[in-house]
Amino acid sequence: MSMDQPFDIASLHQAYAAGLAVDAMIDQAYARITAADDPGIFLHLAEIDTVKAAAAALGPFDPVAKPLWGIPFAVKDNIDVAGMPTTAACPDYAYMPETDATVVRLLKAAGALVIGKTNLDQFATGLVGVRTPFPVPRNAIDPTLVPGGSSSGSAVATARGIVSFALGTDTAGSGRIPAGLNNIIGLKPTVGALSTSGVIPACRTLDCVSIFALTVDDAWRVFSVAARAAAADPYSRTIPAIGYGATPPVLKIGVPAVADRQFFGDAAMAAAYADALSALSAMGHQLVELPFADFYATANLLYEGAWVAERYAAIQPFFDAHEASLHPVTRKIYGGAKSLSAADAFKGFYALQALKKKVEPLIASVDLLCVPTAPRHFTLAELAAEPIRENSRLGTYTNFVNLLDLCGMAVPTGKRTDGLPASITLLGPAGKDGLVASLARDLHERSGLALGATAWALPKAELALSISPEDRIELVVVGAHLSGMPLNGELKALGAHFLRETRTTAAYRLFSLAGSVPPKPGLLRVSDAPGGSIEVEVWSLSPDAFGRFVAAIPAPLGIGTLALEDGSSAKGFIVEASAVTDALDITAHRGWRSYLLETTA
Amino acid sequence: MSMDQPFDIASLHQAYAAGLAVDAMIDQAYARITAADDPGIFLHLAEIDTVKAAAAALGPFDPVAKPLWGIPFAVKDNIDVAGMPTTAACPDYAYMPETDATVVRLLKAAGALVIGKTNLDQFATGLVGVRTPFPVPRNAIDPTLVPGGSSSGSAVATARGIVSFALGTDTAGSGRIPAGLNNIIGLKPTVGALSTSGVIPACRTLDCVSIFALTVDDAWRVFSVAARAAAADPYSRTIPAIGYGATPPVLKIGVPAVADRQFFGDAAMAAAYADALSALSAMGHQLVELPFADFYATANLLYEGAWVAERYAAIQPFFDAHEASLHPVTRKIYGGAKSLSAADAFKGFYALQALKKKVEPLIASVDLLCVPTAPRHFTLAELAAEPIRENSRLGTYTNFVNLLDLCGMAVPTGKRTDGLPASITLLGPAGKDGLVASLARDLHERSGLALGATAWALPKAELALSISPEDRIELVVVGAHLSGMPLNGELKALGAHFLRETRTTAAYRLFSLAGSVPPKPGLLRVSDAPGGSIEVEVWSLSPDAFGRFVAAIPAPLGIGTLALEDGSSAKGFIVEASAVTDALDITAHRGWRSYLLETTA
Repeated sequence: MSMDQPFDIASLHQAYAAGLAVDAMIDQAYARITAADDPGIFLHLAEIDTVKAAAAALGPFDPVAKPLWGIPFAVKDNIDVAGMPTTAACPDYAYMPETDATVVRLLKAAGALVIGKTNLDQFATGLVGVRTPFPVPRNAIDPTLVPGGSSSGSAVATARGIVSFALGTDTAGSGRIPAGLNNIIGLKPTVGALSTSGVIPACRTLDCVSIFALTVDDAWRVFSVAARAAAADPYSRTIPAIGYGATPPVLKIGVPAVADRQFFGDAAMAAAYADALSALSAMGHQLVELPFADFYATANLLYEGAWVAERYAAIQPFFDAHEASLHPVTRKIYGGAKSLSAADAFKGFYALQALKKKVEPLIASVDLLCVPTAPRHFTLAELAAEPIRENSRLGTYTNFVNLLDLCGMAVPTGKRTDGLPASITLLGPAGKDGLVASLARDLHERSGLALGATAWALPKAELALSISPEDRIELVVVGAHLSGMPLNGELKALGAHFLRETRTTAAYRLFSLAGSVPPKPGLLRVSDAPGGSIEVEVWSLSPDAFGRFVAAIPAPLGIGTLALEDGSSAKGFIVEASAVTDALDITAHRGWRSYLLETTA
Repeated sequence: MSMDQPFDIASLHQAYAAGLAVDAMIDQAYARITAADDPGIFLHLAEIDTVKAAAAALGPFDPVAKPLWGIPFAVKDNIDVAGMPTTAACPDYAYMPETDATVVRLLKAAGALVIGKTNLDQFATGLVGVRTPFPVPRNAIDPTLVPGGSSSGSAVATARGIVSFALGTDTAGSGRIPAGLNNIIGLKPTVGALSTSGVIPACRTLDCVSIFALTVDDAWRVFSVAARAAAADPYSRTIPAIGYGATPPVLKIGVPAVADRQFFGDAAMAAAYADALSALSAMGHQLVELPFADFYATANLLYEGAWVAERYAAIQPFFDAHEASLHPVTRKIYGGAKSLSAADAFKGFYALQALKKKVEPLIASVDLLCVPTAPRHFTLAELAAEPIRENSRLGTYTNFVNLLDLCGMAVPTGKRTDGLPASITLLGPAGKDGLVASLARDLHERSGLALGATAWALPKAELALSISPEDRIELVVVGAHLSGMPLNGELKALGAHFLRETRTTAAYRLFSLAGSVPPKPGLLRVSDAPGGSIEVEVWSLSPDAFGRFVAAIPAPLGIGTLALEDGSSAKGFIVEASAVTDALDITAHRGWRSYLLETTA
């Protein structure tokens, strides 16, 4: 194997297919840990022989049965892995779990291999990565910068290529900020898409398990494995892994109005954000400036009142008995919640609900939002001088997201003028994870960046890996709805996308229907007579548009299932047999367009 | 006018159309107030001349422009009416609102006339109607019984025919219990369907404005006027007034398992409930017994912890300054919340979320639930002996409803063996208000009861009043999707509404398709052979649901345009002619259901 085998999943699976031994991959992962020389990344490392034994138990390479076969990953140390201590970066809190967290179990079942547990801001409270009693992980791009948190170790391990992906958690932005600061992908799913069973809560009503990866394809592949509703988790939801694929050509993308953008003096970050917006425009998307005051007001709620009390509630008996065991900053934050009353909590919910109502129309006015991931970079020295203020500033564009039930993805967009990483975060309504990822993929590809802190190039993987069909319905059109024909505008008005030209199997006859306006053909499947292969076009529509389209089709036409020459089938136009008994059979012309050309020439 | 003009809306509008003067109606309303001789009903009464002036301002009778033209109503005294004091039955809390609550404004704009403000359990906390410093309203059916609360005055005013309808509020059951105890309809909408702007909160996250009426048609007509999302109300939701009409012929109705039913020794109530269930079965519906322990556990949360703190939060400054101003029972309940912490509140939410997750599959397994409205009747004397315990028992079947985001309607089903009112409550998921009302209407009609405490008969009104058109697509089903057939659940899962049974024109032939699982017929239009008129059902779906439905139909079936015997046409199932060349022609059986019955008998 190459001494520097890229660990993105596509490259690694290609290498396995070409004969790479999984043990060689494991050796290289551990060699990279040694080479990184960063004692802050892992709080617990699996024995290398244990990982090799787990790999041996996978059987031969089979990426269909096990879509994460032989893929190394790391787990933030507030998520249980059976047999490894869970500490939440608070040694006195540590316990030894007997079972895997639900997401870990799913990933293992798909063939992924746990390398170790990673460092974090204690109890996942923080966006900086330095609130830990253990050594602070070094930012993988520039060791003078904060690594970002709370999922610091997971992000750095991924950026360094030690693992293919890592699990984080994200309540305030802990799955996005460290991705943005380490030049990797941070997938923050819809709240509840990944179960938090087996995860130490920060805010149970808001917590997400998040995914760090080197490529969007990889993040999506992991999401597709891990996004499963769990009966034992009351906050788990069914969020199907759909909608990842070709991005619609024109999206409306909401961005903070220029006057509302906050970079706290970091001009390079402002310029990088402007560049990313220019890229979106150049790709054909429409930017819509939105007032952002209510988003910021929502963000402020997260550390005022109710939701801090939720953090306290999560570890109340431990906190009350062992206050001195906490990191001083964490202790101060949690301690502020002890005196809050239940009535105070409700006042927080009312404030959030009022803000939700105000931003809902803004969010509904666009397809997605695009914000900077972090408003600026902070050095370790800057943070040490203002540990709470600068942490809070890092959350400018992240703190409101889970409160508003949005999903998001942080994606690298380039290097800033000073060489530091530039990243934006795309946000969408709950369940739009696939659309967010699709656009993030376009941006990442356009950036031309190497992956994380490595020299690896983004692989030219097959788009979307056929993991998830989009939630659209294919429609085969035969006559007046073909491109350039009189009724084609109906399809476009409904937002239909053209997919391809093809032909039916040779089991159909085509008729010219007498008296229809505009002229239309009728396609009839035949079993007792010879048929022809008819030229058709395939378009796709949303279920709503498809429903409206079908509802408007006049007799004797209807929608049935058409068999296509490539062996597939799709919904498409059929005609009632009773309407063609006297109609002109034009099957010999091979299609409606050809018939019109050949008979009017 | 008759000395006893029925005040249900249909009768009153018929009388207006026939020349009844609105002033004569007003005179009669006030005469009934005098005749009732019950100082506990109204806390504030409009001057009769003020009401007459409001009526004069409506212009000529026009029930199209003003669907509540000249309809008298009463308003629970925790809902603002401009120019009338709002007291919440706590005189020291009273204030004079300058504007109407949103719902009052909508009802006035539709032509309704406010007669006065009605008595209640103080701050809407209670289900009994006696927790008021004012005289207790007398139960309209039997003055020895509690009137029920908290919306006691509104229910009694409606039952006595003083008003056509009245507004209540419902957090724990205050819109259902007094309806059940006074032989009237209690519509408890989906949470947020009616704005609570201008309503003194009990639990802001759960509060509903509710509607008392003499008939289900009336309640629905008021709901259709009042159900409007209000931008100023953060908890308001868009719940369109749709789905009221013909009830699907076969509904799955969840009922408490026999062992879980609680009547607290009231055998007559148990018998009345069993009679109501027998009626539902006789109407063709399927009863499904469900374990009810988790519903009861949910109900218990409402007065334990978090949600009591929400009541306290609603009046915290007043309570802290004027504790002695409260009714002793109310004071005791609210005072218990003062020491609860924000962490306690979150623990309550977690407990609720865990229970929601447990009952969701139960609720999803049926179309609706049917429970007793109250588990038993209590006399005033019985309540005085155990004021908190008996109040709590009254909430057995109501307290869980808003916590689980269900909508509901209490409907009279008959008289018990002892002559006292029998009532059940139908419950459905959020947004199913129309389906709940449709079935309630069937039950009320079947009961043959006089309305409220009057001798008025239920008018034979036109069904559904064509109040609300909607953006839906009609679908004609022919075979396995008919009510009670194997695939009917697909339609229900997509939110389809049953509209009617009908037949096609005599231009079709029906075939039994060989080898389809489940067995399915195919409907083919014929032009060159004699056809038959085939039995079908018409359902409606949203465009999105229709699109998904069509996309999932397997060959050789498809969707075309079917001609129906009433001269209309609609989208519906057709079969490709090539698939029926060897199929069994079953046209002579007139329909798929008949064919199955006649051939398997």
